[in-house]
Amino acid sequence: MRRILTATLISLTAMPALANDDIVLRGMGSFHIGGRIAEVSGKPVREIVRQPGGPLTKLDSNGQYMVEQMYVQYFLPKNRKGKFPLLMWHGGGLTGVTYESTPDGREGWLNMFVRKGWDVYNSDAVERGRSGFASPDIWPSEPTFLPYQDPYERFRIGDGAGSWNADPAKRKVIPGSQFPVEAYDNYMRQSVPRWLSTDKAIIDAYVALVDEVCPCVLLLHSQGGAFGFKVAEQRPAKVKAIVAVESATAGIVSNAPKLKDVPVLMMFGDYVDDHPRWAAFKKIDTEYANAIRAAGGTVDWINLPEIGIKGNSHMLMQDKNNAEIAEVIQKWLASKGLVD
Amino acid sequence: MRRILTATLISLTAMPALANDDIVLRGMGSFHIGGRIAEVSGKPVREIVRQPGGPLTKLDSNGQYMVEQMYVQYFLPKNRKGKFPLLMWHGGGLTGVTYESTPDGREGWLNMFVRKGWDVYNSDAVERGRSGFASPDIWPSEPTFLPYQDPYERFRIGDGAGSWNADPAKRKVIPGSQFPVEAYDNYMRQSVPRWLSTDKAIIDAYVALVDEVCPCVLLLHSQGGAFGFKVAEQRPAKVKAIVAVESATAGIVSNAPKLKDVPVLMMFGDYVDDHPRWAAFKKIDTEYANAIRAAGGTVDWINLPEIGIKGNSHMLMQDKNNAEIAEVIQKWLASKGLVD
Repeated sequence: MRRILTATLISLTAMPALANDDIVLRGMGSFHIGGRIAEVSGKPVREIVRQPGGPLTKLDSNGQYMVEQMYVQYFLPKNRKGKFPLLMWHGGGLTGVTYESTPDGREGWLNMFVRKGWDVYNSDAVERGRSGFASPDIWPSEPTFLPYQDPYERFRIGDGAGSWNADPAKRKVIPGSQFPVEAYDNYMRQSVPRWLSTDKAIIDAYVALVDEVCPCVLLLHSQGGAFGFKVAEQRPAKVKAIVAVESATAGIVSNAPKLKDVPVLMMFGDYVDDHPRWAAFKKIDTEYANAIRAAGGTVDWINLPEIGIKGNSHMLMQDKNNAEIAEVIQKWLASKGLVD
Repeated sequence: MRRILTATLISLTAMPALANDDIVLRGMGSFHIGGRIAEVSGKPVREIVRQPGGPLTKLDSNGQYMVEQMYVQYFLPKNRKGKFPLLMWHGGGLTGVTYESTPDGREGWLNMFVRKGWDVYNSDAVERGRSGFASPDIWPSEPTFLPYQDPYERFRIGDGAGSWNADPAKRKVIPGSQFPVEAYDNYMRQSVPRWLSTDKAIIDAYVALVDEVCPCVLLLHSQGGAFGFKVAEQRPAKVKAIVAVESATAGIVSNAPKLKDVPVLMMFGDYVDDHPRWAAFKKIDTEYANAIRAAGGTVDWINLPEIGIKGNSHMLMQDKNNAEIAEVIQKWLASKGLVD
């Protein structure tokens, strides 16, 4: 089913592709956690245009605002098999949508891990998606916006810099790509602006979540790894395992010994060593892993091509073989005694 | 269970309060719909501060961006009884979270209508929540932010202007309030910034959604009513019924005859006539309803106090008697032949 949205934009639908089995939940819902009431004072009353062509109207921004809370949605399967809740934390410029349906409408890891019997808590980091964001009076920097072609070249969908072309037929897809390139538009619809000044607020909200729902297992992707390891360093007793998928930097090396009792799985997709950006992240993650190991901890490492799983982009959970990779993770979790 | 988040902020948890019955789904997932690729060109390279205290770095914002798409999450019950999908559209400064768990952690209308057998599609309007938002290069106005006390005085939680006090013990709750005032903080965590210049983009995305998943029933709240009636005017044959809950303005009166074959329910909570803002919306909705009736259409109208349901705020779907109100809606839908 294809629809033409504008003269230049053809969109694959991402409507329901139903799996064979029902999903039976003993509960589902959402909540926000963390945050603070921020006070804005001493700002002059400004005149702003609220609607294009409209009049200048006064805006008094002084007052109190609720900011830096985090949105969390949960799904609790009836047939629970995971011993602890599984918390899914997304990467930069994205939201929890990362783990929902794939851009081409298949089931994502959220459904898959619920089906495997995990209580799943899927969140939007502070300032992204349903977490909302604060005004320039409260956050002193501005958001950044990801150009349309950027992830194509950077996330190992296309074959690196120069692989993008405005004409889809002329784009250079990475050989054997598992990414659903035909649905790249839908992937970019998932993109949200990001701030570069909010790390502390993001980590604080994640810590509040861990304090609320853990002990738990953390499933981290990309920038979510940079946050997740730092959160785990603050709450090592509450984190029973970490699965870090292409973690884009990790924790603080001097704190790594705090994770000596937390089993960790580091996982990377294909072509990582060929792309300097990803090779650099892998090197940082390796140093962090080695620091955990040096303290007596356990870090398992899977480069997917080395176990015969090839062509994976940075968005492993959306790739066409996402079910196969979920099963690799599930087996590792079971090997750590985390599955009943 | 209570947690202290800051010295001044006490938060009720909104963690799972499980209902007695399982939710059995034949599918669940999400997608984005609509949107366009916007071109930014001719902008000078600027220098911006990306992190507080950091250096000025160059930002070239020229290029293409995916903008104005809309996020939609769906839940498809195994035991389907609603004849058509039920689309839930939220109000201003909010997201689809409106219909999820209530601020005090009870089930919201999303769960309730899934349990009643409706395929539910819950969306975040363009620029809100998981739909993302566009840069100032593309949208010429700035977002506005809702002060912490604003909905308390305006949404008939407190008893109008002057009812707010920084000390919760000194706030003047409206008599007999059904709103979970003890969880007001959690309600404000659901708030997101809004733009006042994006109505056309929002309506375009809703029309794209209707074209994708309808025929359907629209459940509209507040500003969602202003959008929903205008969308229905564009696609009257695809909209099988409209439930408008405290619609904050409606459609275009001269277009109202287009809805002559669409059954409509208008619903209002308590104290509406005592508060000029809501009395004004009710008057506008009345004029629109009368224009539909004059063209031979059907508009049913329920002022909840007149059927013995009292104390409801503007956030009816989150009030303590939300299940009772959902049942009023369900009976109306059944009376229109929309429930198997």
